[in-house]
Amino acid sequence: MNLKEYLSEKRKLLEPFILDYLKSKRGSNSNLAYLDDAIEKLEKFVTQGKMLRGILVLASCEMFGREISNQELQIAAALELTHSALLIHDDIMDNDLKRRGNPTIFAQYISQATQVSDPKTYGISQGINVGDISLFYAYDLLSNSTNDVKLNRKLVKFFTEELVKVGAAQMQDVAFGYSSENPNTEDILSVYKYKSGRYTVSLPLVMGAILTNQDNDTIKKLDKFGEKLGIIFQIKDDELGLFGNEAEIGKPVGSDIRENKKTIFRSLLFQKADSKQMNFLNTVFGNGQLTQEEIVRVKKLLSELNVVDEVNQAIQELLLDVRSILSNLDISKSSKSLLEEFIEYNLNRSV
Amino acid sequence: MNLKEYLSEKRKLLEPFILDYLKSKRGSNSNLAYLDDAIEKLEKFVTQGKMLRGILVLASCEMFGREISNQELQIAAALELTHSALLIHDDIMDNDLKRRGNPTIFAQYISQATQVSDPKTYGISQGINVGDISLFYAYDLLSNSTNDVKLNRKLVKFFTEELVKVGAAQMQDVAFGYSSENPNTEDILSVYKYKSGRYTVSLPLVMGAILTNQDNDTIKKLDKFGEKLGIIFQIKDDELGLFGNEAEIGKPVGSDIRENKKTIFRSLLFQKADSKQMNFLNTVFGNGQLTQEEIVRVKKLLSELNVVDEVNQAIQELLLDVRSILSNLDISKSSKSLLEEFIEYNLNRSV
Repeated sequence: MNLKEYLSEKRKLLEPFILDYLKSKRGSNSNLAYLDDAIEKLEKFVTQGKMLRGILVLASCEMFGREISNQELQIAAALELTHSALLIHDDIMDNDLKRRGNPTIFAQYISQATQVSDPKTYGISQGINVGDISLFYAYDLLSNSTNDVKLNRKLVKFFTEELVKVGAAQMQDVAFGYSSENPNTEDILSVYKYKSGRYTVSLPLVMGAILTNQDNDTIKKLDKFGEKLGIIFQIKDDELGLFGNEAEIGKPVGSDIRENKKTIFRSLLFQKADSKQMNFLNTVFGNGQLTQEEIVRVKKLLSELNVVDEVNQAIQELLLDVRSILSNLDISKSSKSLLEEFIEYNLNRSV
Repeated sequence: MNLKEYLSEKRKLLEPFILDYLKSKRGSNSNLAYLDDAIEKLEKFVTQGKMLRGILVLASCEMFGREISNQELQIAAALELTHSALLIHDDIMDNDLKRRGNPTIFAQYISQATQVSDPKTYGISQGINVGDISLFYAYDLLSNSTNDVKLNRKLVKFFTEELVKVGAAQMQDVAFGYSSENPNTEDILSVYKYKSGRYTVSLPLVMGAILTNQDNDTIKKLDKFGEKLGIIFQIKDDELGLFGNEAEIGKPVGSDIRENKKTIFRSLLFQKADSKQMNFLNTVFGNGQLTQEEIVRVKKLLSELNVVDEVNQAIQELLLDVRSILSNLDISKSSKSLLEEFIEYNLNRSV
């Protein structure tokens, strides 16, 4: 089975599991009118993404010979509901009104608030609440996934530690967003590591490894493999935000420039630009009225000043590590080729 | 031991337990500079309140003959960290810059953001993050509190169900805040029930009862006892916000009027006011520039139109139920007198 088939097959298990769980929470209390609406919004939100983190939990379990049953699905669902919670809160922080082509949760509440004086603050408040509710459900699923107390403890402990790191990296990222200084590449990569790398790949792979009782050495390898591949994943995300296809990525190309996001592309560009180029860059980064022409000019500069080349080289270095760790992992040939395909998918994805 | 001594004795156990837990999370990662600062803020925030919910967990355990050990403290700490998380997020929604006389968490980040163009949005973002981190820690403590899988499951399930109700009631409360309509008393009491009543008293008491393996009948009684006493607790909170002492309650008297909070006092006042009085009320409720004189006039109206009397009568009715449930509870005499004192404390508290 190739990766595409694998993703689609596992999604067919995970999506209905999450939806059934959420549906079972609906209609429970007529006095809590807002809950059903919130859950309905959550159902659409949680299923509109790639469900990569949840599916990676399942992949990790299967890699270690475990058949997928309820407990594996519960952990996968917990990761997806957590991811939704974090995205719902992130969209508020980034003031992102669209995600994957659809209105974000707080934007949906802004649209509904036609009668109120301050729709934006209303939307922010309700968005915070829906994110919190999603997080409650996530931990509910996670905390009750296995019958083995020690295992449960290990899973929740690792999960919480990683989520705290995501939160702390998000705080750093927010601070970057408001700073006029150009953060250095190292600091940006540190945010990538915790906010994306470990969270997107290490966390799900290691959860599967813990659940299937793998030894510490295997867990460490998977952890490092995920961290580095996850950083590549984030850099590719930045790249798509600049060079991707708007219809495919579901958000306007150049929105990272408009929002002055401190990506690795921006960091290197600002390091390399001369004073004349800096004058131009300072007028476009963080400029809400950015034109198509200006985006094209930024892209041209990224290429001319070798930023694209340098980022690609960083990816190549990470890739060497990722492949070397993979070759040392004690898993079946078919598992290895699935992970190899996952690496390729990351390098070539357009969405 | 009277209630005051009891609260102070249990606080001496719980406060260091929470602080030790949080301190153990500091300094773990030099790449996550924002985490230590966030935890430090959290340490101050979590200990500046009355710790009522956490202490009620411990009281419930002791009521059922359980000595306080780590697992009871873990659950109590989980409730306090959850409460901090919810307050941190609530303060953002209500735009409350002060709590108990101190700057709220998001207000602290606003003050720190001297160099940024939009300090408020910066503060909101960081506040959301710190609230999320507090919630991660809370579930970490809760999920690992006992060695009995079934018990753990029951605790997490009940806890999550109640928190979801709090979230849904908070959504309703936010909607009330933005609505120009006067919600009826029933709808307001429904918010009080879920957002305050059950959450503040039922939840901690029932968690203790579940942990000590009480039968369903006892749990149901405690649940109802807590719900009704908790509604009284919330009404008293509203009363203090109007008639309390500013220095004691730690926020400006009349801030509920300024913020146009849909309290039961407001609901009844708006129902009873004639058109001339309504003209006045419409200029003061939701008015950020509210004067001391206007607050005094609102208080006078509350008394003249018998709102205070009617609220007091509602409290008396709840009180009858609360006392009748208490008399039917199968607990020791000293436990009963502690709960009786807790009822009195609620009725007479000034803070």
